[in-house]
Amino acid sequence: MDTIKSLRWRYATKKFNKEKNLSETQINTLKEAFNLTATSYGLQPVKLVVIHDKDTQKELVAHSWNQPQVLDASHLLVICIPEKYTIEEVTNYFSLIKKIRNTADEVLNPFKDFLTQEIDKKTQEELYASNKNQAYIALGNLLAVCAFEKIDACPMEGFIGEKYDEILGLKKRNLKSILVLPVGFRADDDYMKDLEKVRKPLSETIIEF
Amino acid sequence: MDTIKSLRWRYATKKFNKEKNLSETQINTLKEAFNLTATSYGLQPVKLVVIHDKDTQKELVAHSWNQPQVLDASHLLVICIPEKYTIEEVTNYFSLIKKIRNTADEVLNPFKDFLTQEIDKKTQEELYASNKNQAYIALGNLLAVCAFEKIDACPMEGFIGEKYDEILGLKKRNLKSILVLPVGFRADDDYMKDLEKVRKPLSETIIEF
Repeated sequence: MDTIKSLRWRYATKKFNKEKNLSETQINTLKEAFNLTATSYGLQPVKLVVIHDKDTQKELVAHSWNQPQVLDASHLLVICIPEKYTIEEVTNYFSLIKKIRNTADEVLNPFKDFLTQEIDKKTQEELYASNKNQAYIALGNLLAVCAFEKIDACPMEGFIGEKYDEILGLKKRNLKSILVLPVGFRADDDYMKDLEKVRKPLSETIIEF
Repeated sequence: MDTIKSLRWRYATKKFNKEKNLSETQINTLKEAFNLTATSYGLQPVKLVVIHDKDTQKELVAHSWNQPQVLDASHLLVICIPEKYTIEEVTNYFSLIKKIRNTADEVLNPFKDFLTQEIDKKTQEELYASNKNQAYIALGNLLAVCAFEKIDACPMEGFIGEKYDEILGLKKRNLKSILVLPVGFRADDDYMKDLEKVRKPLSETIIEF
């Protein structure tokens, strides 16, 4: 049960080793894994900001409840979604399917029409909420991948999104930051790393039919 | 890059092999993996319904846009969250930490007070929305774990939650179904399994600093 062992090894790392950086291979794995995240209808509304600039990381600490892992981690990942979602995303998606799979229009068009209608009948608020859900799927995927790759991570909802958006220039890209994930390696002297994992017994979290 | 290979192997399986069931070991891995999902503050508001009763699966098809994978998959997983969230969850959580780690009260209490206040100042709607996010993290985690374990899965948002809640008796357990995940093995003759994966190029989904 290597998978379970990896997931048990994982914990929300608050104290990172400041000297130890992720290799280029490791960062590439995280980028690829992010891009392979499942999303609703495959539309991929999520984007990932990968920060390895210490000045930027330092600036963001103040807008992250002063949590030091934002600076100390090797890289800071920020999962974003569009502020406004347009039907162009659907059009582009079907162009991409056509390009990659060379699927015939008569096969694609019914699904394209359906999806266009689905998007059209939703308000911007509903689309934003739905895209936000996809950001959380991406987080769950990244956390599992980090565990398998023996990369430490600290999932964070506690930060000032508006400040992140401003500092990272996300507004002009029509993006909003949803989740933050410092990644790197746990500090050798982090006492948290040796604590027993706290989880409810399966009898409390699983219901069987 | 075995991790990436696994994630590329994964796809939203619509056509399952009806004859092939997950082993007990595989189902146990999924249950354990679910229970190890990261959740906000570690509070684990999510629960997993594991269905391997064909009559129940059959009944649910009609409330799942008639999608056959709900019946044909080996098992049907349903990720749930509490309808109403109470402060008791926080109390129980700290009892669990104490039981597992034997942490001193003077260490636990400041965090317990903070978390109690955090929960207290939120409306039921806000707590529900926050717990729903955790369901999506659990989904992202399960999808990655399925890929690593060579288990096929089909993440689904398209189902009538109220009907699921009724049929599975979730209301009396104070639960609401959020996400559905048929799991099992792809059918040998599913043409979808051999299609090229459609993903945007990394240059469109990754922003680097």
